Amino acid sequence: MSEEPAPARPFDLVVFGGTGDLTQRKLLPALYHHERDGQLREGSRIFAISRQDLGDDDYRDQADGWVRRHLPAADIDGEVLGRFRERLHHLQVDATEPGDWASLAAALTDQPERVRVFYLATSPDLFGPICQHLAEQQLNGPASRVVLEKPIGFDLASAKAINDKVGAVFEERQIFRIDHYLGKETVQNLMVLRFANALFEPLWNAAAIDHVQITVAETIGVEGRGAYYDRSGALRDMVQNHMLQLLCLLAMEPPVRFQEDGVRNEKLKVLRALKPLEGDAVAKNTARGQYRAGIGDGAQVKGYLDEEDIPADTRTETFVALKLEIENWRWAGVPFYLRTGKRLPQRASEIVIQFRSIPHSIFHADAGRIPPNRLVVRLQPDEGITLQMVSKAPGAGRLRVRPTALELSFAEQFKVRSPDAYERLLLDVMHGDPTLFMRRDEVEAAWSWVESVLAAWAGSDDAMKTYTAGTWGPSTAIGLIERDGRTWHEDTG
Amino acid sequence: MSEEPAPARPFDLVVFGGTGDLTQRKLLPALYHHERDGQLREGSRIFAISRQDLGDDDYRDQADGWVRRHLPAADIDGEVLGRFRERLHHLQVDATEPGDWASLAAALTDQPERVRVFYLATSPDLFGPICQHLAEQQLNGPASRVVLEKPIGFDLASAKAINDKVGAVFEERQIFRIDHYLGKETVQNLMVLRFANALFEPLWNAAAIDHVQITVAETIGVEGRGAYYDRSGALRDMVQNHMLQLLCLLAMEPPVRFQEDGVRNEKLKVLRALKPLEGDAVAKNTARGQYRAGIGDGAQVKGYLDEEDIPADTRTETFVALKLEIENWRWAGVPFYLRTGKRLPQRASEIVIQFRSIPHSIFHADAGRIPPNRLVVRLQPDEGITLQMVSKAPGAGRLRVRPTALELSFAEQFKVRSPDAYERLLLDVMHGDPTLFMRRDEVEAAWSWVESVLAAWAGSDDAMKTYTAGTWGPSTAIGLIERDGRTWHEDTG
Repeated sequence: MSEEPAPARPFDLVVFGGTGDLTQRKLLPALYHHERDGQLREGSRIFAISRQDLGDDDYRDQADGWVRRHLPAADIDGEVLGRFRERLHHLQVDATEPGDWASLAAALTDQPERVRVFYLATSPDLFGPICQHLAEQQLNGPASRVVLEKPIGFDLASAKAINDKVGAVFEERQIFRIDHYLGKETVQNLMVLRFANALFEPLWNAAAIDHVQITVAETIGVEGRGAYYDRSGALRDMVQNHMLQLLCLLAMEPPVRFQEDGVRNEKLKVLRALKPLEGDAVAKNTARGQYRAGIGDGAQVKGYLDEEDIPADTRTETFVALKLEIENWRWAGVPFYLRTGKRLPQRASEIVIQFRSIPHSIFHADAGRIPPNRLVVRLQPDEGITLQMVSKAPGAGRLRVRPTALELSFAEQFKVRSPDAYERLLLDVMHGDPTLFMRRDEVEAAWSWVESVLAAWAGSDDAMKTYTAGTWGPSTAIGLIERDGRTWHEDTG
Repeated sequence: MSEEPAPARPFDLVVFGGTGDLTQRKLLPALYHHERDGQLREGSRIFAISRQDLGDDDYRDQADGWVRRHLPAADIDGEVLGRFRERLHHLQVDATEPGDWASLAAALTDQPERVRVFYLATSPDLFGPICQHLAEQQLNGPASRVVLEKPIGFDLASAKAINDKVGAVFEERQIFRIDHYLGKETVQNLMVLRFANALFEPLWNAAAIDHVQITVAETIGVEGRGAYYDRSGALRDMVQNHMLQLLCLLAMEPPVRFQEDGVRNEKLKVLRALKPLEGDAVAKNTARGQYRAGIGDGAQVKGYLDEEDIPADTRTETFVALKLEIENWRWAGVPFYLRTGKRLPQRASEIVIQFRSIPHSIFHADAGRIPPNRLVVRLQPDEGITLQMVSKAPGAGRLRVRPTALELSFAEQFKVRSPDAYERLLLDVMHGDPTLFMRRDEVEAAWSWVESVLAAWAGSDDAMKTYTAGTWGPSTAIGLIERDGRTWHEDTG
């Protein structure tokens, strides 16, 4: 059994984008689970905001269907779902209609003291205007919090503009910038692994670690989101946020405490210690490409240029691999290889920490090359941690070694449901705990690092590389690591 | 599949004590397995020596029965066993009859060039005389090897006397002093763990390790061997050999190679670095006792003093616990707690390496005391290695930690039979590999350390402590570790 915290005080949650994809797939199912686990106090309310003309009952019926569709049938308890429905309300808000904002304010004013969470599951260009309207209605008091979904901007300037606008209305402590990777069980486990075990910290540095790999691989393509994706690309969509956050948690110094700004201060130090990639170094330390027609999820799929809403002359990357360095005492000289892309052979997110090889083998020369130890942290599909080691091959006679693995599979080890990332993060917002949310300075430091890569790419007239859908990216991505005498970890299957 | 080495060249194996318990339970079953695995070359012969008047056929019938009794039925292949029988011969040798020795020599002289192994599975007071007779028959040539079973003496003086007598006939390189603990798969795995993985060596010292525990627990009593046991006791019977050997493998510096004297040189350095226990320090750092009536293997059993052949005034210990220190740079300040005894609650041999606690917890104060990491190496009953760690308790809400374990179970991991220790050690003798056998200087260094404890005990008139059969020894054994703020690892079940 997991120990559940005390339920949050009663709150009002206002979801902008209340009929959107994220609300359907993630927010409502997460909130339903909170209902089931007794974490929603009597009287807590959820207001879904959209431009549609829906009554509460219409919305409740829709929400009922979304929850049932996106959760396993075994999780559904009719009575709980009935109770949950009663918390849901729908408000039609047209951003350009001042009257609509007044109605929203009116719906909340009967509970002036309670925690109000405004969840902005909308396009980022609406973040500023929505906050402005909330301020006009005086909904930005000290008990209010605002949750911002990614992307926080498109580059450093637009991120700053958003942060300025939101910051003009809410104090930084009221702003929760979500990166759902930080809500994943395994990502938090990475911190427990590092800081609740004395074993790893003495090994967690350049003396013991050869290199680190972070892979976030998708099998899907742009899936009808071509217009959005083509303005973004893999570097903005995955690296700037999720992957740099993983890198920070992996590489940071031990925080003073897992609270308040303890973790965020340390993550920021990592981001600021990233060696800038500029000019010629960009071509040398990055590889990018677009998928061609090939195999995706077992079927024949078209290439990126043939997807809907993709301009013929686009230079947006659907794959990127990077070699990063962290310029500090702990990590100097240890390369961090990152790669992410669409239409790759597997859906797999994982971190591989490869330790250095043993300096000398005492065993017979023909014992074979002894593979180095690896710690593999899988974020998906099946969360778990594996320690790849070497042990004695059983049998009398000459001593031989063979690879073996110590496995920690969360699904097997703990016979409880692993909560979705959004469940935890929503609860943290309710409790006002910002530890797992990104601070303004972090977001901007990440954009700052990414921007010089984007600038170098924009200034390059190299032909765009391509890769067949269903392969691990362009050959330059293989070359990026192989020319260092290393190899991507690919037996993730 | 295990990779089997090339079969040894044809050999003659001569077993003194050819109808004894060790031959029945261990040597013949091990040799049968070698037969089955094709490791016995055509023409290899096994001569069993005893004082009984048995023809080859009589002996073969007996041996057939022993092999079938001591191996699982699934291991028995009638055809293999038939072939194995043909290698067996029996020779009646009365040590006092010169003619018997001449007959033995005659039986071997048709193969003067081949490797001859004389396996002395007899009382140690016969080691000298037997070697003398072999020399008289000129059976101690360069192709001869002699295997000595424990105990090598009763104290330093008697061990030296045996080594002198055997050494007068055979060169040190021809002498294989067996300690079957070194033949156990897990014990060898301990060396692979340490020296084929880069992970552990940086942690393998006083900076990272809090203390080490070695437990060898038996549930049996003296089992009709009272007369022998009462002259020995737990310190001589278990600590001087098996447990100090385990300690050496655990604590030694990385050997240059796993061959020849590489390992033995390093083990000797550990034995010589053991802080001597002398005078008052003995009472403070040891605990001993005798079992009283109680529970053994689930039944009511009598106390040690009521066992057959035990003198009423005996002060022989059936349990001993010790706190040792190794005076070198790697281990200074790290206590090694050893305990062994008869009539304990479980049959369990294991090594526990407890790492230091984390220096500071970043997690909530109420996360509970975070248990330190432990590496547990089980030698029996089920061989395996467990890394006890801490991971995140699943669930949204406040981050909590809980103990978890990374398991390497050999039986599960490798679907092959784990060979008995004697199989490996016999093979090593055939191949002339002395790595896993004790050198003279090691045996004597171990006796030298043990002797000062024996001397202090002999000079003490403290009342002998007792413990109820089926418990973990006298209360002084608990006190030995508890007063250091530590606790015996007892959840071995």
